[in-house]
Parts: sequence; structure tokens; C-alpha cells
Amino acid sequence: MLRIFFLFSLLLFSFSHVSALDFCVGDPKGPIGPSGYSCKIPANVTVNDFVFSLAKAGNTTNIIKAAVTPAFDAQFPGVNGLGISIARLDLAPGGVIPMHTHPGASELLLVVQGSILTGFVSSDNSVYLKTLKKGDVMVFPQGLLHFQINARGKTAIAFPSFSSPSPGLQILDFALFANSLPSFIVEKTTFLDDATVKKLKAVLGGTG
Amino acid sequence: MLRIFFLFSLLLFSFSHVSALDFCVGDPKGPIGPSGYSCKIPANVTVNDFVFSLAKAGNTTNIIKAAVTPAFDAQFPGVNGLGISIARLDLAPGGVIPMHTHPGASELLLVVQGSILTGFVSSDNSVYLKTLKKGDVMVFPQGLLHFQINARGKTAIAFPSFSSPSPGLQILDFALFANSLPSFIVEKTTFLDDATVKKLKAVLGGTG
Amino acid sequence: MLRIFFLFSLLLFSFSHVSALDFCVGDPKGPIGPSGYSCKIPANVTVNDFVFSLAKAGNTTNIIKAAVTPAFDAQFPGVNGLGISIARLDLAPGGVIPMHTHPGASELLLVVQGSILTGFVSSDNSVYLKTLKKGDVMVFPQGLLHFQINARGKTAIAFPSFSSPSPGLQILDFALFANSLPSFIVEKTTFLDDATVKKLKAVLGGTG
Amino acid sequence: MLRIFFLFSLLLFSFSHVSALDFCVGDPKGPIGPSGYSCKIPANVTVNDFVFSLAKAGNTTNIIKAAVTPAFDAQFPGVNGLGISIARLDLAPGGVIPMHTHPGASELLLVVQGSILTGFVSSDNSVYLKTLKKGDVMVFPQGLLHFQINARGKTAIAFPSFSSPSPGLQILDFALFANSLPSFIVEKTTFLDDATVKKLKAVLGGTG
Amino acid sequence: MLRIFFLFSLLLFSFSHVSALDFCVGDPKGPIGPSGYSCKIPANVTVNDFVFSLAKAGNTTNIIKAAVTPAFDAQFPGVNGLGISIARLDLAPGGVIPMHTHPGASELLLVVQGSILTGFVSSDNSVYLKTLKKGDVMVFPQGLLHFQINARGKTAIAFPSFSSPSPGLQILDFALFANSLPSFIVEKTTFLDDATVKKLKAVLGGTG
Amino acid sequence: MLRIFFLFSLLLFSFSHVSALDFCVGDPKGPIGPSGYSCKIPANVTVNDFVFSLAKAGNTTNIIKAAVTPAFDAQFPGVNGLGISIARLDLAPGGVIPMHTHPGASELLLVVQGSILTGFVSSDNSVYLKTLKKGDVMVFPQGLLHFQINARGKTAIAFPSFSSPSPGLQILDFALFANSLPSFIVEKTTFLDDATVKKLKAVLGGTG
Repeated sequence: MLRIFFLFSLLLFSFSHVSALDFCVGDPKGPIGPSGYSCKIPANVTVNDFVFSLAKAGNTTNIIKAAVTPAFDAQFPGVNGLGISIARLDLAPGGVIPMHTHPGASELLLVVQGSILTGFVSSDNSVYLKTLKKGDVMVFPQGLLHFQINARGKTAIAFPSFSSPSPGLQILDFALFANSLPSFIVEKTTFLDDATVKKLKAVLGGTG
Repeated sequence: MLRIFFLFSLLLFSFSHVSALDFCVGDPKGPIGPSGYSCKIPANVTVNDFVFSLAKAGNTTNIIKAAVTPAFDAQFPGVNGLGISIARLDLAPGGVIPMHTHPGASELLLVVQGSILTGFVSSDNSVYLKTLKKGDVMVFPQGLLHFQINARGKTAIAFPSFSSPSPGLQILDFALFANSLPSFIVEKTTFLDDATVKKLKAVLGGTG
Repeated sequence: MLRIFFLFSLLLFSFSHVSALDFCVGDPKGPIGPSGYSCKIPANVTVNDFVFSLAKAGNTTNIIKAAVTPAFDAQFPGVNGLGISIARLDLAPGGVIPMHTHPGASELLLVVQGSILTGFVSSDNSVYLKTLKKGDVMVFPQGLLHFQINARGKTAIAFPSFSSPSPGLQILDFALFANSLPSFIVEKTTFLDDATVKKLKAVLGGTG
Repeated sequence: MLRIFFLFSLLLFSFSHVSALDFCVGDPKGPIGPSGYSCKIPANVTVNDFVFSLAKAGNTTNIIKAAVTPAFDAQFPGVNGLGISIARLDLAPGGVIPMHTHPGASELLLVVQGSILTGFVSSDNSVYLKTLKKGDVMVFPQGLLHFQINARGKTAIAFPSFSSPSPGLQILDFALFANSLPSFIVEKTTFLDDATVKKLKAVLGGTG
Repeated sequence: MLRIFFLFSLLLFSFSHVSALDFCVGDPKGPIGPSGYSCKIPANVTVNDFVFSLAKAGNTTNIIKAAVTPAFDAQFPGVNGLGISIARLDLAPGGVIPMHTHPGASELLLVVQGSILTGFVSSDNSVYLKTLKKGDVMVFPQGLLHFQINARGKTAIAFPSFSSPSPGLQILDFALFANSLPSFIVEKTTFLDDATVKKLKAVLGGTG
Repeated sequence: MLRIFFLFSLLLFSFSHVSALDFCVGDPKGPIGPSGYSCKIPANVTVNDFVFSLAKAGNTTNIIKAAVTPAFDAQFPGVNGLGISIARLDLAPGGVIPMHTHPGASELLLVVQGSILTGFVSSDNSVYLKTLKKGDVMVFPQGLLHFQINARGKTAIAFPSFSSPSPGLQILDFALFANSLPSFIVEKTTFLDDATVKKLKAVLGGTG
């Protein structure tokens, strides 16, 4: 038996450095490249790198009565390089995740509590609209405008998963009004009038 | 105003066939290729192609006290070509999803009820083990052996999402014992003894 | 010499069916899959499948004083499966390509006549703004909101190329106002007021 | 025991259509797309679809004293969609695989008999040259010019594997001289003189 | 002539830094990312980075009478980033490569000496079994369980190539029994009895 | 209003580190990996990283009466990781871009001035030849031999875009004659005679 143990151990040893890329837990201190974060040294990886808690409700006492808690590669190193990530949505009654896109991923939304009115618009401007109940999933193709609204009286909770560890998130109103993008450009490229643009810039902290 | 409408409409029309591949809802009647199902004609696509219900608990009155309800491209045409899919796991008290792999995807498991003891083994035989609570997520890198066990007295529910619309699912015991793979091959390649192999083949309906 | 010819010919023959996927000129009559159109039979492919004319200026006598002429896989079968496509932009004085995204590709804009004020907004709402002159190129990362404005007195011409044969094109105003997306949803998810939404829906031919 | 069997069978059944894309054996009669051949119906797939014989030496009684026997997706349906293929090279004494590229794949050459002088040239015109012995492997990065020469007195055998089921094969001399490419174009773009081009066109069966 | 030389040299120079990514020979001292090792500085790359010897038989005087000698990116820097790698299998009479998967690649096995009984099991538990002779190749789709057995009296040699520079290798028995995975988990997720699990853990050096 | 501002700001802040991979502007000082350059720190990125000028004509007073000015990732950091790049071609009357390939990308050539005779040869040695006029585009599938000739009396200008930020460029004559590749190898693998090879090596600065 000892001899068997010994020989297998040899075999094990000869394979031990083969598995460099089973996974690549993100190392926040290393360089980042187009495919993601550098890999943490395998010897320093523990199970906790692969686990993340989305148990806590986000704070919805804000203007949109909603919260997004991402578990993307920037927060959750275990998904780095694995082609998937997740987030948590909390929508208080009347809450809304404003019109937005994920430039780098398709989304699969799972509703686990309450009811959510959601939809997306395709490149040919078709509208795909649905009220999802608990246990429903809906898929949003990559890069298309979509939104979530809690139209009922009960807090809704949903978990969107994404086809990339770094899906990105571009919220339309923030992109247009919460930065220094000059008003005349916003007006010229969206057909909104000056008063509307100025008002929303004021609300969202934009300038220009 | 009418003139404006007219001119925009022209512009709209000229773009209307640009969006062929925003999405490719799977057409079960068309040919399948390496990247998935053929696309349903866009005119026939409705929002319901993008929605799937995982509201219903799977039937856990079986030997493993567990059920897997997949929403892969074979069941849920909307995810075809989009790099993501999902499933529902129900584990009654004592239930188990036996040791298995997904040959074609990484998995991100979200626990929404109960508590699940889970883990995976890497190519260098390291073990990553964790008991997940409600709201926890854990990621399982592509192709590695993993399992889920409900070690508590309450039914557990979880939703694994996948980095492919067609992750595949190879359950170890079924692959070894629930088919015609000759017993001498199983024994020779797993070091299990003949009695063990024969017994499990009998239980799982295998032959040879 | 004849013998040499003969033997080489044999060699040539044995290789002749190897090159199935040098290219895959799109066949508009075959099924479409997630990776593009079916391939035209190689024997029917001619050089004209690989050539497309963008010589003709688009018609800019419209409300935006601009035109987009795409040479995507739907128009230009030769790019099918090759990871690239192109279009032509014409902007009359004062013309604008409204705020838009390409859900499926990054864009590389080349200005060949005139001057174009352009820019994009990133996921963290940073603004990248530049006035491009003839001979300048600018790259717009995939899926991010961007626009083009001709702020000068001369017609501008530019050629955007894309990192996909099917980049898609989602024009913000059309997505919000030129379809049946209910006004209350637009208002709730963009913070625009009812009058603004109703007005733009009227202009752009939307309902609801 | 019967009850156990029954319940497992149910579970097995519910998974049976999940595995659509474990593999996609090429169906030569279906449409081809950018990612490869259509998939043969799984029920018609047998182990022989995954097996190919390269046991037979190619015929080297030709001008190059060499033969290439491909097992690409056009010959070997089992590799369709799997990102890999292989071929067999036979080089009689003095045999040569002329300067060529594989437009669609990197190559990994394994020598199993004899000795082969081989090499490639990179984009910056660096030369990487080596005489390989039995048991040596050499990798040729995608798309770069390379060649194989048997400089010894014994027949050499090698097996190149490729990073694509459809690597393509462009033999330089055939591309320049074995077709209707006009001589003046060959001369203008290669700096070869008219006599050389005309001579090689005559040998290789080209016109123009 | 000198003038021509000079001008061409200029042209050459202007292209000389274009070819950064013809190849990316792995630098074991640089950071690793999801797509592989950092690239060695091109000036330090030699032909030997692209060559690896698999000429030497692995040591088969062990319990499985077999040896695997990998030429993956961890051993063979030239394949880094190129989508392909290779290994050598030696199987003494009665030798076996135990049931295993490659989580990150499809495999193409080439038999160059002797005869090998091999096979794989798909996600729907179908068995694909074949005895390969010298010159036969067989493809194993990514992530599926497979094995090799030398059932004859002569040593067999085979070369598996892989569709990734880092295919990984998960040997079933090692994953289950050669580590600290608790016995009760192995038993619960494989249906093996406690005595069998304990015995194999003892043989393979596992604990728990 | 202030309260609204405050709450939105909080929301903005919580998203601010999500967008790591909207883009990855190349950092020439960081390590390079198989997918490209390391990313510049986002805080140091400016719009100028995304803009490049190809306004200046290349110097065509050379033997080929032509110039190529690349805007690949090595010159234009903004395209790093984005799957696209571009270049400028200037061809004086009689100018020629000699026979070449791009090992890593398909090309889409846009003619903006003059007229260009161009073409490519496929793996089965078919010739696809066309004289392009201003405004024409032509696509060249990845890795295939192609060329451009200005056959008219006026300088031609064209902009090829590429399906990769690092397409590579292998000019046939330089690969064969402008380095140390031994003459006997060139002759053996191209069927050119010794005098021709020696002459071209002398012209192009090659040795051996």
C-alpha cells in the first residue's frame, strides 16, 4: 500500500502545475488587461474568493426608491475571467431602475420577491414589455436599453446575472445629465429642449 | 410636423433591417450549428420568447430528494446565442445534487431559501468547500466537479446561472453507471471494485 | 513538364475542399444563426460579393440633416462572419447623428471631409469629447452612448468601421419615442415630464 | 430497488435533451455558417463520427516528394465546432511542404519519424528555424509563412494539429502561379521578373 | 541599388513594431491573466521557445502503468495565447489513464504505437467507445469524462493535442479521494459506500 | 432639490468603480498579454487616447511608391482590446503595396481618392480581383494573400480597417528575402531559382 501511495503521489506532483487557468481569481493589485484582472497566486486563493454575499438589501431610501448591488469582477474577484457575474436589485414600492444598458453583457433577470414591470427596446425600436412575477426570468440582449419598475405595493427583489464578469452599466439619465456634457450637445443629439436639459442637469449634479 | 414625421419615418425605415443579430431567438425547427440554434424570424418573436417561469418547485420525491429545472436554450429559446442561461434547484431536507460538471460553462449559484453545503475540486485536487446561506452566491469554474447538499431540515432553493446558453450537465454517477459502459472499464478507470460497480449499475439502470 | 503539371494538379485537387471557411459570404435565403448568415455555396461566390459601394452621398434633406448608409452583413454579404463592417455618414451643415449606441460592436470613425464634433460617455459618466478634422480617427468602445455633430458650414463625410459584421444601431430618441413604449414608462425611467414625452412621441411617430 | 430505478429514470429523462451542444458532428448536407457545419441529429451520431484514420501514408511520388492528408472538418465531421483538427505529413527523402500559411489557425507539428527542417517568419521578418527530430514538437503562430523540408535520407512523418477545425491552407506557389492571377500583377507585387513568373505559371498550370 | 536598399529599409523600419501579437511567448516571471501568461519581450524570444521535446517516454513503473507528459503553457511557453497544446501518453501493457476530464479544452488523440481502448460519455450518458490502432485519431469534446486503456501486450504511445494552451486535467479518483474532501460528502454525492471511499482515500493519500 | 442631488450622488458613487472594462487604453509601460496591452489607469485616460491623426500622407518617394501608416494598438492605445484598428495607404502613380497577409485580422479597404487595383487569393487558389473607385469598399478575409496597385496617373489614398487591434502585416518579399532565411530554403520551398533569390536578397537587404 505504501508503494502505491508513493507512486500516485509522484503522478500527482507531476500534474500539480498544470491547472494554472482553471480559474483566475482577480488580484486587485496586479495590472489589468483587456480580458480582466491579473490572477491571484493560486496558493493564496481560498474558498472565500469564490463566495460573495448579496443577502443584505440595498438602501432604497433615495429618489429612485431602488438600489443596485453589483457582484462584478471589481467587487467579487472569483468571477474574473469566468464569463459571468451577478447583482442584486431592490425596488421599494414605486421604485425604478432607470433606463440603462450594459455595454458588455446580456442580462438574465430573476425575480425572487414581488412583481416587476420590465422591458427592452431592440435596434429596430420594437418594444418587449412584461410584468414578471416571483420565479420568472427574462433575458435582455447585450447593449439594449431596458428598465425595471416596481408597480406594486410590496418591495420587489431581483437578481440579474450577466454574461460577463464586467458587464458595465450605463444609466441613460446619468450619462446625459450627471456630468459635464454641454447642454447644447445634449439638446442637439436628443431633441430635448433647453429647459428640460438644464432642469435635469441641476437635479443630477451635472454642469455645462 | 407632418413633414418631420415623414422624414424620420424614412430614416427609421432605412435602419429597420440592420438589427438582425441583436438577438437570435432559437427556432427548434431550424438547423443547429456549433454556435446554437437557428434564429426565429424576427417578425414572429414576442416578449414571451424572452421570458421563462421557474416559479414551480421541481418534484423532490425521488431518491436524491432534489430536482433540477433547466432554462437552457433547449427549453428557453430567448437565451440562444446570448452567452447565458439559468436553472432552478430544489433540495428537500437531506437532498443532494450529486457530483457533476458542466462541460460548457462556469456556474454562479444563488441561494434564495435554506442553506446549502457546496464545493468544487480544482485540477490540482484542491477542495473549495462552503455552506451557503440565503443571499450567498458562489462561482464554480467551468468543467470542474462540484455538488450541492441540503444538510438542514428545511427545503433549500437555489438558482444557478451559467456562462453559456448550453452549459451541459454530466452527473458523475449517471455517466459511470446509468448506461452500457462495460463494468470492467469502469473498474479499470476508477479503481472501484466489481461489486460496487455492479451494485450501482443495478440501482441506476445501467447494463454491462 | 507535363508530368510535373499532372502531379501538382493531383495535389491541388486533394486540397480543393479544405478551404470551406476562408470566408462565408452570407446567403440571404439560408437560415441565420447566432454567428451570422449561412454561407453561400463557394462556387457561386464572385468578387462582387466582397465589394460594396459607399460612393453615393446619403440624402440629408431631413430633420437631422444627416444620413447613415450601412454596409453591414444585411447589406454587404461579404463581411458575414469576418468580424468587421462599415458605414457612411453624411452630415450637412448643422447635421447631427443623434445620441446612439451600437450594442454589438466598437466603432472606429474616420473623417474624410469637413469637421465633426463627436464624443462618448463611459459607464462612470465621464465625457470624452473632440472635434475631429479630416484625417482624424476616433474609437468608441462597444455599447456606449455617442453622437456626431457637424458644427461647421460645410458638409462633413465620415466612415465608421465596426468590430462586428452586425453592430446594431440603437438611436436613443427612436428607442424612447418612435414606438409603442407607454409614456408613463418613459417618464418613470427617464425623469422626463409628460409634456416632453408626448411632444417627442408625436414628432417621431410613437404611440402610447 | 425498483422504486429507486424508476425515480432515477425520471430524473435521467428530464435531463436528456439538455446536452444539445456537447458536440456538433458536422452534417455535410445541412447549411454551413460562420462557425461551421450544421449539427448531425444526435440520434444518428456514432463513435465512428469521432474517429478518423491517418494510418495510411500519403502518396509522395510527386514533384514535391510529399503529401498532406487533412483531417479537417470537411473530412472529419467529429471535429466540427470543437476548435481543433489534425493532418498527416509524409515527406520522402528530399521532400518538401512548400512555403505556406494557415489563415485560420495556429499549428503544432509533431514529428514521429525521421527529421524535418522547418521554420517560420514573423511579421517583423524574423526567422525561427529548427531541425526537428522524432518526438519534437514545434508551434507555428496563426497565419505566418512556414515550411517543412526532409533533408535526410529517410522518409519523415509528422502530424500537425491545428487550433481550428478549419485551418485553411494557402500554399504560396499555388496562390501566385496555379491560377488566373495575371502575370503583371504577380510581377508588380512580388518583384519577380516576367520570365520567372511565366515559367512557374507553366509548371503549375496557371494562366494569364 | 544602394538607394533601393535604403528606402526599403526605411519601410521595414516603420513596420517593425507592428507585430506585437503575432505570438506571445509566455514569461513565467510576469503576471498571469485570464487569457494566459504575459508575453516575453520579443527581442529575447528564440526558436527554442517554440520547440519542445516529447521524445522521452514517461515513467510507467507505477500503479497505473502509465504516464502523462504535458506540453501545456506552463511547460511550453511558445503555445501561450495560441489556442493549442499537446501531451504525450505512455501506457505499458495493462496501463490506464484513469477516468478524467479536461475542463478547458477538447482533445484530439493520435495513437502512434500499439492499440488503445478509449471512449467518452456525453451529457446524456451515451457511451462512445473505440479501440484505436496506430494512425487513428479520436476527438473528445470539451469537459466530458474519458479514459484510455492499453489492453494489449505492447506498450502504447499516443499524443493528445488540445484546443487550448491550458486544457487542465481533472482525474476523477484524485478529485474524489486524493485530498481532504470529507468522506461523508463523497459518499453522499457519489452513492459510494463508506468502506469504498475510506479504502480509496487510503490508497490515494486523501484525508477526511 | 439638494436632498435629491445628495441621494443621486450616493448612487453614482456606488457605481463608479463598476466600469473597469468599458475600455482598456493600452499602457506601453505595463506587461503585454495574449489579449493585448495592460490598461492605463482610468484616471489618466483622456479623450486624446481615443483619437489618432491619419491626416498626413505617408512618404511615397521609395521603391514601391507607396506608404502604409498604421494605427494599430502599438501606435494608437485607444483601440487596445476593442477588436478594431485602421491604417492609411498612400499610393503614388504606379505605387504598389506588395503581396502580403494580415495573420491576425480581416481587412476592410475603403478608397477615398483615386483608383486601386486590388485582389486576394483564397485557400483553393481562386482569384478575386477588382479595380476599386473612390467610395468603394472591399473586404479581405483573414490571413489570405492580397495586394494593392495604383494603376492610374493620380495618387490614390485608402484606409484599411481591421478586425483586430493588432492585425499584423507580413509582406511576402520581406519575409522571403529581407532577412537571414537561407537561400537554399527559399529556393526549395518556393521553386524560385538561385539567381532570382540571390538578386532579391541583395535588393532587400537579406543575407544567407
